[in-house]
Amino acid sequence: MPIIKNKTLISLTKLFKISKLDIEFKKNITREYEVISGTGNGAVMIIPVTQNTMFFIKEYAAAIDAYALTFPKGGIDKGESILEAANRELQEEIGYMSSSLEHIHTINLAPGYIDHKAHTVLAINLSPSILCGDEPEDLETIEVPFGDIDNLLSKYTQIDSRVLASLYVYGNLTK
Amino acid sequence: MPIIKNKTLISLTKLFKISKLDIEFKKNITREYEVISGTGNGAVMIIPVTQNTMFFIKEYAAAIDAYALTFPKGGIDKGESILEAANRELQEEIGYMSSSLEHIHTINLAPGYIDHKAHTVLAINLSPSILCGDEPEDLETIEVPFGDIDNLLSKYTQIDSRVLASLYVYGNLTK
Repeated sequence: MPIIKNKTLISLTKLFKISKLDIEFKKNITREYEVISGTGNGAVMIIPVTQNTMFFIKEYAAAIDAYALTFPKGGIDKGESILEAANRELQEEIGYMSSSLEHIHTINLAPGYIDHKAHTVLAINLSPSILCGDEPEDLETIEVPFGDIDNLLSKYTQIDSRVLASLYVYGNLTK
Repeated sequence: MPIIKNKTLISLTKLFKISKLDIEFKKNITREYEVISGTGNGAVMIIPVTQNTMFFIKEYAAAIDAYALTFPKGGIDKGESILEAANRELQEEIGYMSSSLEHIHTINLAPGYIDHKAHTVLAINLSPSILCGDEPEDLETIEVPFGDIDNLLSKYTQIDSRVLASLYVYGNLTK
């Protein structure tokens, strides 16, 4: 196992930390890395499904200044469990709550350089319930029959990669 | 479309930039965002396949201080095309070159807060060819029959999410 010989915080913002690591591999080979950490409590991404359909949202994505296709998602508040956060985000973002939530996967975004994880939660048994969140604008909810998911994806050039990773995991669960 | 009213660079390291954005949504609702950008030329992730098998690698992932399952991947060098970078990384990381490379998808990592993209390249027609890269240690190459991919994934708790996203895209191409 490589050994982290030094870890230096080189940047701290409201949401992110960047650290410089000196990591020693075998044979005294040392390399310098920069890695990003979050300052929050992690995030959830929810796959909301009914018997025949799945819900997506279209949301403004600030880092690319464009709308992207994604699932309901958001940060876990302090003291909240993964499933509590998932049910809150569902109600804030698509106006449904779930009486049956299951944590099916933990996404490692790009573990070579960022430690962000998102917990994928499958939400079934949906019923209408609205909570007011902190969204700066109403989100467009897209409900599609299972058979039309790939057609929906083909229409978007900007898709949050965590949607595709979550769909892969979901596909394995249900095949 | 929301309008970026101000963009301020708040952190610049060797590999990353963090900017603070003030974004105005309709109805004069303004929100502050922090977004991460890379300073490089983007990245490639390669799905290497033979007639019956797919290649993965097991690589140390610095941000989580653990080994993770991933595909061959790496930064695009200045002046390199996506497919040139893919073929170089293939030779450096698994010791094969491809005579048939196809750019099948562009991964948007988490476009709400990071602009990183990775170009997924499908590589077929593989033949042995080694290039020396800058890896600090030899990577473990894992070649599995198509039918054993999900079994392989089930053995790893740390999987680069871009692998799952790429597998979803690949699955749609080949079904």
